[in-house]
Amino acid sequence: MSSKGRGNPRPSFIMKFTETQRTTTQVFKGKLLDVRLDTVELPDGRTATREYILHQGAVVMIPVLPDGKIVLVKQFRYPIGRVMIEFPAGKLDPGEDYLTTAERELKEEIGYRPGRMTLLGELEPCVGYSNERMGIVLAEDLTADSVPGDEDEWIEVMPVTFDEALSLVWDGSITDSKTVAGLFWYSKVLNQSGLAGK
Amino acid sequence: MSSKGRGNPRPSFIMKFTETQRTTTQVFKGKLLDVRLDTVELPDGRTATREYILHQGAVVMIPVLPDGKIVLVKQFRYPIGRVMIEFPAGKLDPGEDYLTTAERELKEEIGYRPGRMTLLGELEPCVGYSNERMGIVLAEDLTADSVPGDEDEWIEVMPVTFDEALSLVWDGSITDSKTVAGLFWYSKVLNQSGLAGK
Repeated sequence: MSSKGRGNPRPSFIMKFTETQRTTTQVFKGKLLDVRLDTVELPDGRTATREYILHQGAVVMIPVLPDGKIVLVKQFRYPIGRVMIEFPAGKLDPGEDYLTTAERELKEEIGYRPGRMTLLGELEPCVGYSNERMGIVLAEDLTADSVPGDEDEWIEVMPVTFDEALSLVWDGSITDSKTVAGLFWYSKVLNQSGLAGK
Repeated sequence: MSSKGRGNPRPSFIMKFTETQRTTTQVFKGKLLDVRLDTVELPDGRTATREYILHQGAVVMIPVLPDGKIVLVKQFRYPIGRVMIEFPAGKLDPGEDYLTTAERELKEEIGYRPGRMTLLGELEPCVGYSNERMGIVLAEDLTADSVPGDEDEWIEVMPVTFDEALSLVWDGSITDSKTVAGLFWYSKVLNQSGLAGK
């Protein structure tokens, strides 16, 4: 719960806003979710409760094939109740950094090994009820490495051009936030390399 | 858990991927979170469990002031542990549609009444562990309506140009996914109106 120093405003502003943890209780622990109920002290001294998911962090990958296409995946997302079109993503193992996770997940999910990886930025998907933080990793110079593992038999790989991906956003076929935000970051990469609109 | 018909692939693909709910259990219910543990039948007939947040839906607003600036807000987000810069957002009340929520939240959070609202698209912020769906509402022709309510004394309004908002994304000051994705949608609005880059 510490302040991270990125994008923080002046100290007096922080003082005015900060909530201080007093107690924390694990109210549910499943295979996936760790749910916490904290009591906090508000800036005016009153007490309140806060409920949230404690998350280990994740990474979303923007895999670029030698022909310039980017790799999306289709998979069924049970909470949403339908097949989603997304950039490949995965959770960090304990102590793992973004690039290590990205390399592992690229191999497992889509069967490629990246020649070059760049951490573009970070996202926080659910600031109201999860502490999840996600690295956005651009993965280039991909080479086919292996057939994706058994666990991913229900993932379908979907290479598209950037313009095709944009159309899927604007027509409502891509609604996954990390994928929409990742495409925005990738548009910056294309603009800087002079490739936008090609 | 029904299929929504937007962006869905062919029926055989859906058959192959779909997980069917067998049981659902509420494992935690707080003031904010409703946490579910379901058993599901996988496409191959095996059984698995799924854990997720049951969410009532939300809306994120892109408020455009008469001078062309867009309105961001700063607020402390306890799960993240720091002050975040975001578009204003709020949860749907039961039975409420996106535009009704947007009008209410604009008044409560930033003290403006919109003259015109447009639903640009939808986002799903946390497809791995929440069924949250969020409307993206462009709110134009804003007029000052009231001082924001007491509950928002810890929200600071921050009008910026689109280019300033972009800089805040690229320098890591904006990491909230709905805000990054919302800015991408707004770049499309600006491109269509011929205002991009002005």
